[in-house]
This record gives sequence, structure tokens and C-alpha cells, in this order.
Amino acid sequence: MATLGLLDDASAGPDALAVFDDIRAVRGNDYVNNFWRALAHDPALLEAIWSRLKQVMAPGALDPLVKEMVYVAVSVANGCEYCIHSHTAAAKAKGMTEAQHAELLAVIGMASQTNALATALGVEVDARFKV
Amino acid sequence: MATLGLLDDASAGPDALAVFDDIRAVRGNDYVNNFWRALAHDPALLEAIWSRLKQVMAPGALDPLVKEMVYVAVSVANGCEYCIHSHTAAAKAKGMTEAQHAELLAVIGMASQTNALATALGVEVDARFKV
Amino acid sequence: MATLGLLDDASAGPDALAVFDDIRAVRGNDYVNNFWRALAHDPALLEAIWSRLKQVMAPGALDPLVKEMVYVAVSVANGCEYCIHSHTAAAKAKGMTEAQHAELLAVIGMASQTNALATALGVEVDARFKV
Amino acid sequence: MATLGLLDDASAGPDALAVFDDIRAVRGNDYVNNFWRALAHDPALLEAIWSRLKQVMAPGALDPLVKEMVYVAVSVANGCEYCIHSHTAAAKAKGMTEAQHAELLAVIGMASQTNALATALGVEVDARFKV
Amino acid sequence: MATLGLLDDASAGPDALAVFDDIRAVRGNDYVNNFWRALAHDPALLEAIWSRLKQVMAPGALDPLVKEMVYVAVSVANGCEYCIHSHTAAAKAKGMTEAQHAELLAVIGMASQTNALATALGVEVDARFKV
Amino acid sequence: MATLGLLDDASAGPDALAVFDDIRAVRGNDYVNNFWRALAHDPALLEAIWSRLKQVMAPGALDPLVKEMVYVAVSVANGCEYCIHSHTAAAKAKGMTEAQHAELLAVIGMASQTNALATALGVEVDARFKV
Repeated sequence: MATLGLLDDASAGPDALAVFDDIRAVRGNDYVNNFWRALAHDPALLEAIWSRLKQVMAPGALDPLVKEMVYVAVSVANGCEYCIHSHTAAAKAKGMTEAQHAELLAVIGMASQTNALATALGVEVDARFKV
Repeated sequence: MATLGLLDDASAGPDALAVFDDIRAVRGNDYVNNFWRALAHDPALLEAIWSRLKQVMAPGALDPLVKEMVYVAVSVANGCEYCIHSHTAAAKAKGMTEAQHAELLAVIGMASQTNALATALGVEVDARFKV
Repeated sequence: MATLGLLDDASAGPDALAVFDDIRAVRGNDYVNNFWRALAHDPALLEAIWSRLKQVMAPGALDPLVKEMVYVAVSVANGCEYCIHSHTAAAKAKGMTEAQHAELLAVIGMASQTNALATALGVEVDARFKV
Repeated sequence: MATLGLLDDASAGPDALAVFDDIRAVRGNDYVNNFWRALAHDPALLEAIWSRLKQVMAPGALDPLVKEMVYVAVSVANGCEYCIHSHTAAAKAKGMTEAQHAELLAVIGMASQTNALATALGVEVDARFKV
Repeated sequence: MATLGLLDDASAGPDALAVFDDIRAVRGNDYVNNFWRALAHDPALLEAIWSRLKQVMAPGALDPLVKEMVYVAVSVANGCEYCIHSHTAAAKAKGMTEAQHAELLAVIGMASQTNALATALGVEVDARFKV
Repeated sequence: MATLGLLDDASAGPDALAVFDDIRAVRGNDYVNNFWRALAHDPALLEAIWSRLKQVMAPGALDPLVKEMVYVAVSVANGCEYCIHSHTAAAKAKGMTEAQHAELLAVIGMASQTNALATALGVEVDARFKV
């Protein structure tokens, strides 16, 4: 269903291949998922996205698992089926339990509902919530 | 800018007032924010949303602060200005540091970008990401 | 906050003015709301949108009030503050009661929640729901 | 394509099964659709969503068919393929005619267009549309 | 996966067929794509959409290729898989090069990211950007 | 209405100030708009976004004006009021005429409408549109 198709290692140029190799090294396994193989048609974009993602998702003030759950939440609200699947899998790989997944889903559902209600009601932001 | 207006304590009916009181009790302060005062036009909806929210946002397998950050993430992706402000304030009240806020924003931005790219490319979900 | 500004009757060209007059005639009152005054910078677009809207919102197999409520629902999900306000007002003008408004909001909130959950879960469409 | 998979009656726990049975009783047929079977991994969430949905979609100030059409409209704007299919089917089951379906689609399309235009133009809400 | 199914030439009524023929004539080839075959269940809607699309996408102050790229951008942000595919194909047919496609994707990704950040930060519009 | 507030030159740290200076140099004027002043609370994010934006929006296979119009289109579909205003202003600064603006709006409106219709109809992607 792709608009550009996926590049395997043999068809990817050297710049794209270098990114694939870094993905493998960082993740400690051999699999390069379809998103990167689709982006590889434009090695400059591939490199820019991957190097930024590595930085953003690295451990910091927030735990990598928390970051993955935030990523899933954004992906659900944006309706990105691919990203929901890949980041739900990533969250599980980083230790998300079934109970955590269930609560994540409940919060996403709840937020989506009150987002719609606040928008429908045109609620004005409370002065105390503004900086 | 509201489509229904806000009800103060004097104008709210007894059922709405009971919810206002519970909001005050649970939060340990006197302030009832505008969202609830707009919802109060329909006390049944007010009660249903509040009682569910209380449950969903309570401590559980996920920390309440993590839940607030997920809530902010969904609200940003849904473009709900009110919810972004109220839940950013709630996250700060629950201890979100500036560094955590900054990383939250970076993840939201990154996810929004790759959501768009994966969607634009029509990337097929990898078999290993499906259950 | 507009990107183009609003044209009053004096600044609107003859083609835009003709549309303004038709809006007044169809609605039976003198007020031309801001949306049309912003669109009037491009009289061809103004005319195309207005003439199509007139047709689509006319009584037919669905009641005009039902159409207004559907319009509000779409506008909420798309986060269009202007449209939420103008079509909520239009629905009230067409007889939407407070009780109907409350139920409309409850359905919009509920749908937004289950939309997010079905998307997050990646639920496959049941064979019987497909044509 | 699910992130959690579907539970049949044999794999669902007793709490989930009780909800399945109530779904069957309320609808007067034996079929439990995939959404509920995916939610069944978290019986508490399943129960909360189902019991609320039952209430919200029940006859009231708005006709159940009107509610289903509003549900479809929100689902389209949110891009939820599953919900579009299941609630379009539900609307047909509740008597939506082809002519009503056609008008529903026309209103959804029109609203989406003017939502985008009002947003692009940054049209300010008319004073008379505010409460 | 359709909610209405596709009409081939034999099943389409005379009004729908007339639109199909105009689509063929305008495009100079025999293929009528699925979108029009699904819309054909409501010949009036089909005709309204097609005749407006023809006008909007015609050469004017903007090049048809630029219009197609804008169309793709909107479709990505709205998450319309069908439209992304059909308008990416249309853009290629109108001469979009691989380099142009790559830059289009990069801009869409970048805009999606800064959209989310500006929304998350609640940035107030600069006075100089308002008309 | 900001969640973080805006930093003027005096309050910005040296890293943020360096980015402000580069923004001024690249644009050839003294004004630093609010988006960058809000981002400046996190100089690393500010730097990452600005340096990437500079690259993505530079002249290339696509004209900078075309890129700005694509940026506006995405921002409208995502409902980012700030971005719509700032990039509409940027497009005008790069030479967008009134006629081009009008056509841009018409395409955005049209795309939003057919996006909704294709989604509502669940139209399957034509085999010939897939790679």
C-alpha cells in the first residue's frame, strides 16, 4: 500500500545503508523495520529523522518507556496505524506490562473524550492555567 | 467564547454542586475550573465524566504524573487548547520538572513528524508488530 | 486574528454583495456573519461555497436540525472553533432544545473516546460490516 | 492488524463474558463485534465503555438513529475506519435509508470543507454566536 | 472495505455514467478510479464534487502540479489513505520528480512537528501576522 | 495564552540568543517571532528545530514559495492557528499573490471535503495507485 515502496539492503544506497547499520547497532538486533526502508528513498531525510529520533528517545529526564507511551498516545490521536503498531511493540520491548498498557489506553480514551467536550463547549482557559 | 457559559456555585443545581464539592475534596483545594462549570449545564454528563476521570487518573500501574503527560500529548495532537493548558498545569502540580516538560514536548514534536511521514509513505505494518 | 480580514458591504464587490443579499433573503434576516465576509475576498469561492451549502443544508431526507447537529459534530472533531459556534447557534435557531444539545455533546464525547480506543487497538473491521 | 488481538468467548474471563452477554441481550442477537472482543483484555475498561455507551445511545431527546448518524460523522472526522464501518452498519440497522445516508455524507463533506476554510481564514467568532 | 461498494459502468445510472464519461474525456484516458465509483451511488453528489474539483484543480494562478502537492499535504494531515495514494499518483502523472516528492515529504513532516510544538506551547500569534 | 511564556533577548540564555541571531541573519531583519521565543526555554530543542527548518525550507527542487504554501496547507489541516498565521505571512513575504492565496484556499477546502468523503465511504485504494 506504500506510495514509494521499501528498499532492502541490496537496493539501498551507501548513505541509507549506513543508517540501517546504525539502527541495528543501537537496537542490538538485526531487524530494520519498514518505516526506515520506506524513508531510505531519500537518504538525507532518513538520516535527519533517525539521528533526531535517537536523541529524542534516549534516556533523560523521562524514562524511555514513558517516552514510548507518549509516542503511542500521539500516534493514536493522529490516527497513524503504522506508528501505533511500531511504538506499541517498542513499549512492550521496553517493559510495558499489560496493566500499564490497559491504563495507557484508558487515559488516551478519556483524554479524547474530554478534548472533544472542552472543544464543543468552547471553554475559556482559566487565568490560573496561563503563564 | 463558550457555547454554553459557565455556572458558578449559586447557579449550579444540587447535583452539579455535589460534583463540585467532590472535585474540591479530591483535589484538596477550593478551585473548580471552567471545564466543570461548563459541563454543569448537564449534571448527568458532569457526574459521568468526573467519576470516570477520577478512576482513570488515579495511581495504578502508571504514575499519575505519567498519566498527566500522556493526557497532554493526546490534547496537543487533538488541538484542544483548553486541555493542553489545564493538564500542563496539572502535570506541573504533580511535579513535572522543566526538563521533563522539555522532553515531553520534544517527543510530541517528533511523533507528530514521523506520524505524518509514515502516513504519507503509506508504510505497511511489519508482520512482527502485529499480534 | 484573521489572515484576510472581513469585508463590509461597502468594501465588497458587486459579486460578493449579490451573495450577501441572497444570504439575507434565504435566512430572512439582515445579518451576514463573519465567515462570508472573510470569504468575500474571493467572490468566486464565496459563491461556490454558499450555493453548495444552501443545497446541502436544505430540507430533504434529513431534517435541517439533524443536519446542523451533524455539522456541529464534524466541526468539533475537526476543532473548528468558528464553525462550532456558528452551527451551534444555527441549531438553536432551528429549535435544538437544551436536552438535545446535552445528548449531542454526550454522543460526540463518547464517539471520540471509542474512536481513539478502536484506533489504539487496531481493531479489524468485522466482515459483516463491509459491503 | 490488532495490537492486542481478539478474545473469543472461551478465552474471555467471567467479567468480560458478562459484558458480552449483556451486549447480546441489549441487541437481541448473538453477535459480539470485534471492538468488544479487543477491549475484553481489560474487563474493567470493557465494562466502563459498554455501560456508558448503552446510556448515551439510548432513546432520549434525540432519536437513536440521529445519534448513530452523529457517531458516524465524528468517526469520519477522526478517521476511525473501524467506527465508520460499525456505526454505518448500526445506522442502517436502525433504519437509515439510502437517501438519508447520501445526505449525511454530503453534510459531512460540506462541513469538512468549511471547517478548513474558516480555520485557514482565521475567522473571528461573531459576538452574537457567543453566550 | 467500503461502506457502499463500487459501481461499474453497467450498474451506474445514466447521470453517474455521464460524469464517468466527462472524467474520461478530461483526463484523456479510460480509467475511472474507485472514489468516483463509490460516490456514484449518489449521482447528485458525484456531479457536484466532480464539477467543483475540475474547476479548483484547473491551471490558474497556481500550477496544477503545485495544486496536487498541496492536495497531498492536506490528505496526509487528514490521514486519508485513499487520497494520499490517488493524489501522489496524480502528482507523479503531472511531472513531480523524485526530488520534488522528497522535499514535499520533508516539508510535510517539518510542518507537522512545528504545528504540534506551537500548539503545545500555546504560542500567541504575533501582532504583525494578523491583518 | 502560552504554557511557557516568551523569552525576550535579555532573558534568553547564550545558546538561545545565538539561534535568535542566526534567525535574524538568515531572514535579513531584526524580528524574532513568538514561536522561537517560546521554544527558547529549551535551547537544545530550539536549535534542533531551527537548523532543520532552515534546511527543509531552503530553495531546492521545490520553490520556497511552494514550500510555504504546502506548510500553510498542513497547518490548516492540523488546525494550528499560530502556524497558519505565521506561514501565510511568510508566503506573502515570498511573493504569494492574492490570486494564488485564493486558489490555495480553494484547494485546501476541496481536499478537506474529498478526504472526508473517501474516508466515509471506505474507498479501497486502486491497485494502480500502489507502488
